[in-house]
Amino acid sequence: MREIYVGLIGLGTVGCGMIRILDDNRDLIEDRLGAKLTLKRIVDIDTTSERPVEFDRSILTPDVSAIMDDPEIEIVVELIGGYEPAKTFILEAIERGKHVVTANKALLAVHGPQIFDAAHKRKVSVQFEASVGGGIPLIKSIREGLAANRIGALYGILNGTSNYVLTRMTEEGATFEDALAEAQKKGYAEADPTFDVDGTDTAHKLAVTARLAYCSSLRYEEIYTEGITGIEPLDIQFASDFGYKVKLLAVSRDRGDSIEARVHPTMIPKDHVLASVSGAFNAVFITGDAVGDVMLYGLGAGMMAAGSAVVADLMDLARDNLSGVPQRVPLLTCRTAAISDRPVFPMDEIRTSYYIRFSAKDRPGVLSKISGILGSRNISISAVIQKGREIAGVVPIVMLTHEAREKDVREALKEIDTLDVVSPPTRLIRIESGDGPEGYWL
Amino acid sequence: MREIYVGLIGLGTVGCGMIRILDDNRDLIEDRLGAKLTLKRIVDIDTTSERPVEFDRSILTPDVSAIMDDPEIEIVVELIGGYEPAKTFILEAIERGKHVVTANKALLAVHGPQIFDAAHKRKVSVQFEASVGGGIPLIKSIREGLAANRIGALYGILNGTSNYVLTRMTEEGATFEDALAEAQKKGYAEADPTFDVDGTDTAHKLAVTARLAYCSSLRYEEIYTEGITGIEPLDIQFASDFGYKVKLLAVSRDRGDSIEARVHPTMIPKDHVLASVSGAFNAVFITGDAVGDVMLYGLGAGMMAAGSAVVADLMDLARDNLSGVPQRVPLLTCRTAAISDRPVFPMDEIRTSYYIRFSAKDRPGVLSKISGILGSRNISISAVIQKGREIAGVVPIVMLTHEAREKDVREALKEIDTLDVVSPPTRLIRIESGDGPEGYWL
Repeated sequence: MREIYVGLIGLGTVGCGMIRILDDNRDLIEDRLGAKLTLKRIVDIDTTSERPVEFDRSILTPDVSAIMDDPEIEIVVELIGGYEPAKTFILEAIERGKHVVTANKALLAVHGPQIFDAAHKRKVSVQFEASVGGGIPLIKSIREGLAANRIGALYGILNGTSNYVLTRMTEEGATFEDALAEAQKKGYAEADPTFDVDGTDTAHKLAVTARLAYCSSLRYEEIYTEGITGIEPLDIQFASDFGYKVKLLAVSRDRGDSIEARVHPTMIPKDHVLASVSGAFNAVFITGDAVGDVMLYGLGAGMMAAGSAVVADLMDLARDNLSGVPQRVPLLTCRTAAISDRPVFPMDEIRTSYYIRFSAKDRPGVLSKISGILGSRNISISAVIQKGREIAGVVPIVMLTHEAREKDVREALKEIDTLDVVSPPTRLIRIESGDGPEGYWL
Repeated sequence: MREIYVGLIGLGTVGCGMIRILDDNRDLIEDRLGAKLTLKRIVDIDTTSERPVEFDRSILTPDVSAIMDDPEIEIVVELIGGYEPAKTFILEAIERGKHVVTANKALLAVHGPQIFDAAHKRKVSVQFEASVGGGIPLIKSIREGLAANRIGALYGILNGTSNYVLTRMTEEGATFEDALAEAQKKGYAEADPTFDVDGTDTAHKLAVTARLAYCSSLRYEEIYTEGITGIEPLDIQFASDFGYKVKLLAVSRDRGDSIEARVHPTMIPKDHVLASVSGAFNAVFITGDAVGDVMLYGLGAGMMAAGSAVVADLMDLARDNLSGVPQRVPLLTCRTAAISDRPVFPMDEIRTSYYIRFSAKDRPGVLSKISGILGSRNISISAVIQKGREIAGVVPIVMLTHEAREKDVREALKEIDTLDVVSPPTRLIRIESGDGPEGYWL
């Protein structure tokens, strides 16, 4: 049985997951692949700490040349994370004609074009199933399973920490701070969870995914990104009263000349299948012109889930190597010549519905002043709730709007926040619902 | 650009969907594939009827040899359905060295082993993504995306008609008959919906899917199959009171020496993500030893959704042909030698929880007689409801059991149904919940 040699750079959580799967499921992997996957070298600056898996310590070294200089190693797995030295190592591996597997969404979001360009020229593959949605076979589904489709829209719950926090706030009325502390205790959140809760991680993943879905060289920096730190239990309660759940959603649509791509807390109808994605789970909801609505759901992170995706990528590359056909599927779904350079649709021009919560001083004329300003900017109100007692001299007034233009809404809120009857900040949450053919999204 | 020629046998709904996708998305398919997919011949006994798509009438013929004898045609798509002549045509195409794409779950469930054996010997591929779950990239996910996993269990909502009927019964309190009539009016159900509602179609799909998931030559005839015809609105209402929804579920588990595989109406917790799969949608929930829980969701049928899967299969086969590597992934996920011949776990030995609804005559001692018989067979009761007034001289008594053995439950019910205080038939619905590590299923 042929043996395919693999080198691993970065022996952290996911690397240990990969090792455990290669060990535990060795027979099954060989039955499916018809070849052996052998981990020949591990490179990590930390060669002494205990790790949660058994492995041959003699293959662990801090010296990356042990992988780069070994011509037997056909595939390099990069699991360091971050920009450097990950980028340098990946580019060197490519230069040496080795295929690459990575889970590094931050690197791909920011430097993906350079990496894929290098791989394309050197005729090697870069696989990255573990970079988005953990073990969910999402990248493969977009590149192959849904390949016959023009993808119209893609919505994602892509950060398990944020989803866990929002779920706890929804189900138990927890505050953001308590829920986040709990997520950290359970090991879902990073030691520094900034990129989880501020939307950065979700935006990285959206960039990686949307490029494949729309055959576009989408620029990560153009994605509007807003996190969940400002969400209060009160907003979640009001959302529920209106029939919504609050999710940190990656939203993208093919708009022809541009790509809509944004990340922010979003209210979605409670009975939508995405609303049932709770806890640390991730999901991506895709609409294709042929397939209609599809959703893929699973754990978005973790040693074994991400390890599952890494090993699936290894098996894919091993099949390519066994058959002598690298880049069987184009790296970014489409031929390079067909990848378009469309800009991200300007956030100011987005049209959606809005949830707006004002902290109003309980004086006569508040409602008329607020609604007057909204009306003067063509923002029409679909529902109003004033509920609950005065706290610290203010009462919450919640308005839902019909579809309005983002720029108009922002300018209206800026003006409203200068009123002496309102106590800023006013809270704004976008709503996705109701305009697709099924009463949902298109 | 290289051209791959395709022959289509059977110009029905899905065939028309395939034609429309090949036409509408021609540019996109070429960008992704780097080759042209050209439909060269269509064979159908009906060469005159109007069809919902435009196509070149001159390529339509009733003579299947127009495809079989054409050496340029590398891939044959079989979309006739049923056993014959589909089987003969597929075997002939294989014999001639042509790859096959089919959506025929009934044929694969019953004659799959013969077909795959022939394809294996002739070194051609048989692809069947459209046979289960319409356009959901399910088969590809099991064979490739989740290839690193030992799959422990697979649960499926695999028949859109049944799910539509149960959803209408749940959401609107409709009767089975009215809901089915509505499904037929909407075009979800076949003219003869027998195989949809009696579980046969779901069992076909379970056989096809479970063989891949467990690398097993599972025998279709051994799958216990029960449909939804006996479900009454009353049962759905009681289920809801207990926190459950009723779904026609395909249930399978790897039990080591055997494979658990059964199809029947099943109560699942309302807040489980599978419970949110409503209307004509399908979903498969898979637990892998590495990936954890994964769910794939989408439309399980229809011209365009199934067409999406057929064209994805065509693109996959075209990539294999372009690279000269047939059977890149083993036809049934595993090498032939690794496929086990494990039997289906005996239904009598299944242990699960049960919902049992008795129609009791309102006389003293009914409860004690029923619970006495249950207790004597080691069936312990976790909840009892007696609710609602007497209709036609009987009142419904509902009991939920703790986990019990199927055989014991059946024998107890047989005995109970002979009591003069009970008016048969007693209704039994199995429950899936609560025994996995997450409070759900393992």
